[in-house]
Amino acid sequence: MIPKDHPRYESLIRREKIAEAAWDKIVAMEGVGSHGRGEAFDYLIGEKTTPSALIAEKTAAALLLNAKKPVISVNGNTAALAADQISDLQKKTGALVEVNLFHRTEERIQKITKLLEENGVIVLKGKTERLLPLSHDRALCIQEGIYSADVILVPLEDGDRCEKLVEMGKTVITIDLNPLSRTARTADLTIVDELTRAIANITEAAENMTQEQQKKLIENLDNKKLLKSAIKSIMENLSDAMDRKAQA
Amino acid sequence: MIPKDHPRYESLIRREKIAEAAWDKIVAMEGVGSHGRGEAFDYLIGEKTTPSALIAEKTAAALLLNAKKPVISVNGNTAALAADQISDLQKKTGALVEVNLFHRTEERIQKITKLLEENGVIVLKGKTERLLPLSHDRALCIQEGIYSADVILVPLEDGDRCEKLVEMGKTVITIDLNPLSRTARTADLTIVDELTRAIANITEAAENMTQEQQKKLIENLDNKKLLKSAIKSIMENLSDAMDRKAQA
Repeated sequence: MIPKDHPRYESLIRREKIAEAAWDKIVAMEGVGSHGRGEAFDYLIGEKTTPSALIAEKTAAALLLNAKKPVISVNGNTAALAADQISDLQKKTGALVEVNLFHRTEERIQKITKLLEENGVIVLKGKTERLLPLSHDRALCIQEGIYSADVILVPLEDGDRCEKLVEMGKTVITIDLNPLSRTARTADLTIVDELTRAIANITEAAENMTQEQQKKLIENLDNKKLLKSAIKSIMENLSDAMDRKAQA
Repeated sequence: MIPKDHPRYESLIRREKIAEAAWDKIVAMEGVGSHGRGEAFDYLIGEKTTPSALIAEKTAAALLLNAKKPVISVNGNTAALAADQISDLQKKTGALVEVNLFHRTEERIQKITKLLEENGVIVLKGKTERLLPLSHDRALCIQEGIYSADVILVPLEDGDRCEKLVEMGKTVITIDLNPLSRTARTADLTIVDELTRAIANITEAAENMTQEQQKKLIENLDNKKLLKSAIKSIMENLSDAMDRKAQA
């Protein structure tokens, strides 16, 4: 049992959820390692939403609200950590939710779909076809879902697939704690924040913005600036830690 | 299959080894996440041994060679990634090797011992007793091993246990890619480098140093300086990445 007053309680609970979901075959073994990488970066940004990440989250809400066909692509880690939050975000934005896995098996698709549905998500079902210009099963998606989306939110996405979605002309929003990753650099909008904090903030923003606020955020979107700001936050935290060490 | 010319080949191979070892119950599920955290920090230090890490590795060799009773504490991740290297290091330093696990089960102890022995390691066996001032099974170790060591190498160790070993008056050497972690800050000597690179460098140093070189390294040991230097390396890499972004 992790004590509730542990300074890193939330992070440790997420770690447990991911391990449990791995035993349940919802999260792939590779997903456990990815979660660890994310944890390290979250630790470095201070385990809180930075001001620039909050701008990114509000911009994501604006893009989803103004899309013709918004789609949220959900993988195992996202479902394990945020199934209930995805349901809220779907309600607020009217986005379709498609399960799309890197380490794809029919068993995992079924289990993740069930978990999402138990949490109130309406999961898009349909024939999966090889519609993305990628090798093997990473090409699979649904014609009426990801393939025809104009704006797509793909949390925790792999670099290759993110690149292809951008090349297909979609507006790609990702959530990625590593501001140096290929996904972070390729997406149109990168939220450098922990998944559950990010989804909560996007959902809240989607409830509370005027049309004008939305328009302004979209016009001012500058992903390079957002990424630089995230890197700067990490550097500031490291610099603070180094100063504390010098005094200790 | 990971292509050999992939720029991050070594790192991806290690990731595969850890996943396989998790399925084999050699690595705990928690160990898969820890490996991911380490990977993220390794990425930030540039996936290479920094000059200050090399000094730390040479100092580790000097400490092990000059110990009365050097012990290497091996956990699942260390065995999965470096069983053969531990054998070389043991031969060069004459250290005892004890299997000591955070997520301890008899099954894992047996499997890890077998893996090490297959790679030529002589594994210390004996009665495990609750000899460390810690709760539960984390207290267990062998009287003639870790308990009576004067110098102990504990790669990838947890903060609590590292602290207790230091309090017991032992010289504690750790290998930890996170220079901010409690383990890193508590140990007498922290090697901020990836495990397999670190063990290779310690072993090489153990072969090639004069008594005088060893004495000098031990006299000059300044762990705060080593940690600051590691943080500085990460900050330089981030700064370079930010400059590249600004130009892109």
